[in-house]
Amino acid sequence: MFSFTLHGTDGEARAGTLHTPHGDVATPAFMPVGTYGTVRGLHPVEVERTGAQVMLGNTYHLHLRPGEDVVRALGGLHAFSHWNRPMLTDSGGFQVFSLEGLRTIAEEGVAFQSHVDGSHRTITPEKSVDIQWALGADIAMQFDHVVPGGADHTLAKEGMERSLRWLDRCKTRHAELQSDDPPRFPASPPQALWPIVQGGTHADLRRASIEGILERGPWTGIAIGGLSVGEPKPVMHAVLEGLAPVLPTGTPRYLMGVGFPQDLLEGVARGVDLFDCVAPTRNGRHGSAWISTGKVNVRSAIHRLSKEPLDPECDCETCATFSRGYLRHLFVTEEILGLRLVSIHNVRFLVRLGELARTHILAGTFDGWSREWLRRYHLRGES
Amino acid sequence: MFSFTLHGTDGEARAGTLHTPHGDVATPAFMPVGTYGTVRGLHPVEVERTGAQVMLGNTYHLHLRPGEDVVRALGGLHAFSHWNRPMLTDSGGFQVFSLEGLRTIAEEGVAFQSHVDGSHRTITPEKSVDIQWALGADIAMQFDHVVPGGADHTLAKEGMERSLRWLDRCKTRHAELQSDDPPRFPASPPQALWPIVQGGTHADLRRASIEGILERGPWTGIAIGGLSVGEPKPVMHAVLEGLAPVLPTGTPRYLMGVGFPQDLLEGVARGVDLFDCVAPTRNGRHGSAWISTGKVNVRSAIHRLSKEPLDPECDCETCATFSRGYLRHLFVTEEILGLRLVSIHNVRFLVRLGELARTHILAGTFDGWSREWLRRYHLRGES
Repeated sequence: MFSFTLHGTDGEARAGTLHTPHGDVATPAFMPVGTYGTVRGLHPVEVERTGAQVMLGNTYHLHLRPGEDVVRALGGLHAFSHWNRPMLTDSGGFQVFSLEGLRTIAEEGVAFQSHVDGSHRTITPEKSVDIQWALGADIAMQFDHVVPGGADHTLAKEGMERSLRWLDRCKTRHAELQSDDPPRFPASPPQALWPIVQGGTHADLRRASIEGILERGPWTGIAIGGLSVGEPKPVMHAVLEGLAPVLPTGTPRYLMGVGFPQDLLEGVARGVDLFDCVAPTRNGRHGSAWISTGKVNVRSAIHRLSKEPLDPECDCETCATFSRGYLRHLFVTEEILGLRLVSIHNVRFLVRLGELARTHILAGTFDGWSREWLRRYHLRGES
Repeated sequence: MFSFTLHGTDGEARAGTLHTPHGDVATPAFMPVGTYGTVRGLHPVEVERTGAQVMLGNTYHLHLRPGEDVVRALGGLHAFSHWNRPMLTDSGGFQVFSLEGLRTIAEEGVAFQSHVDGSHRTITPEKSVDIQWALGADIAMQFDHVVPGGADHTLAKEGMERSLRWLDRCKTRHAELQSDDPPRFPASPPQALWPIVQGGTHADLRRASIEGILERGPWTGIAIGGLSVGEPKPVMHAVLEGLAPVLPTGTPRYLMGVGFPQDLLEGVARGVDLFDCVAPTRNGRHGSAWISTGKVNVRSAIHRLSKEPLDPECDCETCATFSRGYLRHLFVTEEILGLRLVSIHNVRFLVRLGELARTHILAGTFDGWSREWLRRYHLRGES
C-alpha cells in the first residue's frame, strides 16, 4: 500500500514517486498545511488546482477543535476536509513542545494546557497514535521529543534518545490498532507510521538517531525533524549533508516544517523529497508574494496602477486573472478575496518549484538550473 | 442597447428580460453587491456560479478606494473586478446621506468627510455621474436626496423634489459625457442612467415623484429608493402597492437595498423586478444561513456531528460538498473558508429564489407558490 519508486538522481537530488492508498505523489513535492482540515483561506478544490498532492493536518489543533471523535464521526479527515488525495498528520509533538510554560515533559508524555480553553490534557506516544488513527490520514508521524534550535549536546541527546523510546511505543500502539479485530474504525484505510530523525545540530546525534530508527524499521518514509527552528541556514544544510549518505535510498525523506522557496531547493539538493510549511498561506495573508525574481509586497503603492500579474512567469489562477493593481486594492480595503488570491499564488509557486526541480533532476540539469534560479530569486530586494 | 421584454405577469408579479451591453438579465433577479469591486469573501467566478446575473458596485466606496481614476486605468469596473456580466453602480447618495454628522447637504450637492481618512470631499449630481462614467458600469444611478425612514411629509417632500432637480442635472451631465467628441474614455461601453423614486412613506409624494420622473423620461429602468430604511414592512408594501399601477409596464423596476428572502417575494408580488442587498454575504460572514425552512445559525453546537448539508434542497456548491459539522468547525476555528462557504450559499439562495419566482410567474402559479414558500420559511425558529 505504501512504497517509493526512485526514478532518478542528479547529485544528491532525487526524483521519485510515493505510492499511497489515496494516490501517488511525484517528488520532490511541497505539501501545504491544512491546520484545522483546511489550508487557510483556500477551498480544497483550489488547493487541488495548485497541483498540491498531499495535504497536512495538525494533530494538536484537530485534537482540540473539533476533536478526533468529531472528525471520525464525519467520516475521517479526508471526507471531513473534502480532500481525496493523500493526507499526512503530524504527531502534535512540535506544537506541545512549543507551549513553553504551559507544558510539563516526562517520560510518559507531555502534559499541557490547551491554548484554546486552558483545559489540562496529556499527549503520550500512544495517545498521539490513537488520535492520528481516528483522524485517518494516510501517513501518521511518531510522537517525538523536540528540542530548541540551539540545544546543547546533552539536551539534544536526551530528546533524540527519548524520541527513539517513544518511537517504540508509537510503533507498538500502531501495530495494535492495525490488528484490532474487529477494527476500531471499520472504514479506516491503511495508515503508515513514519519515524522522525532528531539530534539537533549535532552530527553524531543525528547519526545515532538514524541508526536507531533503521534498527526499528523497515519504514515507508523517514522524516527529519528539529530543523529550521532558529539555527543558521548553513547548519541546517550541514545536518542534511550528514544524513544524506546514511538515509536509505529507497525511502522518501520528509524535511518537516520547511520551507521557503530557497529552502526547498537547498533541501532537494541535499536529497530531501518532501516538504511542508505554513509560509505560503501565512505570507499570502500578509500580502507577501514569492515570484521568480524575488519577493513582492502586494500592499505597496507602486502597484496602484499596475495591470501586470503578480508574476508574469506563473501559471496560477491568480496570475492568470488579476492585476497587481486589483490585488493591492483588495489588501488596502481589507477584502478577504485578497488573502485568498495571494495564498493561491504562493502555494502554486512552491508546488511548481517542486515540479520544476523534478523535471531538472530527471534531465540531469538540476544543479545548474537551481543555482540560476536562486541567483535570479535573490537578485533584487523586495518590491 | 438597453431594453426590457416582459414575458408574462401573474397578478402584479412580472417575468421579463433586461437587455444590456454585457448581456441579458432574466427577472425577477437578485443582484449581489460588490462594494469595492468584489462581492465580499467571494471570487467573481464563484459569484457567476451562483447564477448571479448583475453585480453592483458602490460609487462612494470605489471613489474613496481605489478612486475612479485607478479603476479606469485598470480597464474599468468590469475588467478591474473580472466580472463580464452586467454591472450597476449606485450614485453614492445613500452612503453620503448616511454619514450623519460628517456631511452637509446643500442644493449644489453633499459635502462630507471620508470615513477612511477624514478628507473633505463633495459629491454633486454632476460629480456622481462623472465618477460612475469613469467606473463604466452598464447602469448608473441618479444622485438622489435620501431621507430617513420616518421622515415627515415636509422633509420627505424636500428630498423628493430635490431628487427631481438633481435628476435633471444628472441627465444633462450624462448626455454631455455620452456626446463628448472625442469621448473622454475611448473604450467606454454605452451606459444607462436610471432615476430613483423618492417620497418616503407618503403616497402622494411617491406619486408626485414618479410623475416627475416620467415627465423627464424615457428611461430604461426606474429605481425605488428610500425603502427598507427602518419603516415597518406593511408600510413598505403599501408604498410598492401604490407605485405598481403608475409605473410603466415596459420598464424594469429596481427596489434598492432589498433584501431578505421574504422581502424579495413580497417585492415580486408587488411588481418589482430587481433587488440588491449586502445581507447574503454579511449574514454569511456571521454564520447565519437562509434555508428553505428558515434560518440556520451555523455556529450552533447542534451541528457538531451533522453530516447533513446546510440546506438539503439547495443546489449550491457549499451544500453539494460540505457537512454542517465541517461548516460549524470552520466558524468555531475562525477559518476564512467558513465565511466564504456560507456566503456562497446565501447568495445562491436569493438568486435561486428569483429563478423560482420567475418559473412560477410564467406558469401562473406564483401566488400559491410564494404563500407556501413563506409559510415553510417562517414555520420554525432559528436552529
